[in-house]
Amino acid sequence: MSATEKKKENKIIDFGSNLWYGATLDKLEKHLVDNIHLISQYPERNAESLRRLLSRRFEVPAENIIITSGTTSTIGHIAHAFQGCRSLLIGPCGRKLEERCLVHEHELRFQNEVNALEEIELGDAQLCWLASPNTISGKMWPRRDLLKYIDAHPEVIFVVNVTYNAYAIEEELKHSDLGKRKNLIFHISVSKSYNLPGIRLSYIMAPKAIAPKIEKFISPFAINTMAQEAGKYIFVHPAQFVIPIRKWLRNTNDLIATLSKCTKLEVLPSSMPYFLLHLDGKKGKDLADYLLKKYGFIVRTSEYIMGLDENTIGISTRSPEENQQLADAIIEWVEA
Amino acid sequence: MSATEKKKENKIIDFGSNLWYGATLDKLEKHLVDNIHLISQYPERNAESLRRLLSRRFEVPAENIIITSGTTSTIGHIAHAFQGCRSLLIGPCGRKLEERCLVHEHELRFQNEVNALEEIELGDAQLCWLASPNTISGKMWPRRDLLKYIDAHPEVIFVVNVTYNAYAIEEELKHSDLGKRKNLIFHISVSKSYNLPGIRLSYIMAPKAIAPKIEKFISPFAINTMAQEAGKYIFVHPAQFVIPIRKWLRNTNDLIATLSKCTKLEVLPSSMPYFLLHLDGKKGKDLADYLLKKYGFIVRTSEYIMGLDENTIGISTRSPEENQQLADAIIEWVEA
Repeated sequence: MSATEKKKENKIIDFGSNLWYGATLDKLEKHLVDNIHLISQYPERNAESLRRLLSRRFEVPAENIIITSGTTSTIGHIAHAFQGCRSLLIGPCGRKLEERCLVHEHELRFQNEVNALEEIELGDAQLCWLASPNTISGKMWPRRDLLKYIDAHPEVIFVVNVTYNAYAIEEELKHSDLGKRKNLIFHISVSKSYNLPGIRLSYIMAPKAIAPKIEKFISPFAINTMAQEAGKYIFVHPAQFVIPIRKWLRNTNDLIATLSKCTKLEVLPSSMPYFLLHLDGKKGKDLADYLLKKYGFIVRTSEYIMGLDENTIGISTRSPEENQQLADAIIEWVEA
Repeated sequence: MSATEKKKENKIIDFGSNLWYGATLDKLEKHLVDNIHLISQYPERNAESLRRLLSRRFEVPAENIIITSGTTSTIGHIAHAFQGCRSLLIGPCGRKLEERCLVHEHELRFQNEVNALEEIELGDAQLCWLASPNTISGKMWPRRDLLKYIDAHPEVIFVVNVTYNAYAIEEELKHSDLGKRKNLIFHISVSKSYNLPGIRLSYIMAPKAIAPKIEKFISPFAINTMAQEAGKYIFVHPAQFVIPIRKWLRNTNDLIATLSKCTKLEVLPSSMPYFLLHLDGKKGKDLADYLLKKYGFIVRTSEYIMGLDENTIGISTRSPEENQQLADAIIEWVEA
């Protein structure tokens, strides 16, 4: 079926979020359907069972783990625990990170386009927020470099979003790297890499001295029973949630090769199945509007992002056929 | 089937929470099952659709309404918005109210056993937290008296939990009483009166000047899609969720009459299908342990409650047969 035929069916194809588009959730959905009666049961106070499960799976003590209702909640809770601190945000990153830090009166600095870690200007920052892999650009720092850098700056707490570790084939940060480190906080969205953005489920792994400070501000009983059950199912059945990442990255490389043939496009480096695309002087918003109206394709624009200029869009790749349709449509527009 | 036979089947009967035990949720469950794919959809940022629905249903502007993940979250968010304020808590009430206010550094006073509203010692309180109907004792202040009292004290903000309005046959506070009042905040747990404690869904109705202060600290995207969908279903199909309250209260009166025959028991006044039972000098915890072990009956003890002495238990009534079994078991124990 051609792209325009698909559009006629009003089919929207989302190239804009980094969800693993191929997730097969039949078994998880069946499990939740079989347990729908859980809507009438009180949830565990602090999702203790799920915590224990994560603790065993990742060999991190349960007391270091906090369950939250998704990334925005995670960020809010951490920002709250460090109310009024000096924070450095490494871009690109979602605007919600800035928003939640400002709500909790952080003194903010923003630094974009950091290549080597040594380029980070920590200054007098008390917290440094980053994502590796970066959630927007797909840039990733090697595990050893990152740990070495973190250990070299014990006066700064590094809050690292490692949600897209699930998509990494290079050596990524591991949960067990928390170890005895006192200045490292991980956070991970379960919903995102498993294509479950509706359930709102994330977790934080933080040092013993910090975890209770974060947890203090989280209302107990806030994670609903269906979300807790979905989380437990995922970590009890990891084999059902394996992402064919090498294949996905091959498809990504093919798409990048196709786009790169067009001299008016520049693909920025990424280690992930998503990447940034620079449009030679044209506005990303205009392209996004065109793609949505004509083909029903969604791409990411700079609207809710810090550190992305208006000439850049974000693309998360999908199947070869869909990628080809997207590339054709983009090239058609930039060449016009 | 006798109570001990039931216990042999390991059946637990919950007389301890105020949920409407008879709720038939088949249609709601079917609706959620039919919409299980919502786990893969992003939730609305601030549950806008549900908000609009509540706004139309209760004739309160959407900007006055905030959706939260259950009562504990509600309390936390309100306490946060009034960080460091002087709060008066009217008992009995859950310990979580005290806990959340302390987390947000409120200066707390507690007053128990308030009969007439005039007995409330407001002093220099900035906030007064109460529940009408009271969530523990079932005591309820008449609507007109409560509004008159609130209006007579414009310098105090009254935070009123009206969750059990759904069980009231006397004239209860109405959502529209919010009106132009500047010192009244309502909050309601949807999960509770509809026997859905697993979904975590509550809402706050607050004056225009206060609502944004509360919302500011709530992370967007925190209410999961299943909870939003359940809420929408409930308010689109209110007829499916009507509680046969007169019948339930008749059953309650029968149980009270049975218990009152025993001179070692004193039933405290309540307008609700739940009430407090004073045990002449004996410990509620001992009775609760006995009932659970021997019959699988759960009753409420003073453990997580402020303003309940250790000789008092809370009972939420159920069917006539179950109530009779509970009464027999209690009388057997107190007479022993």
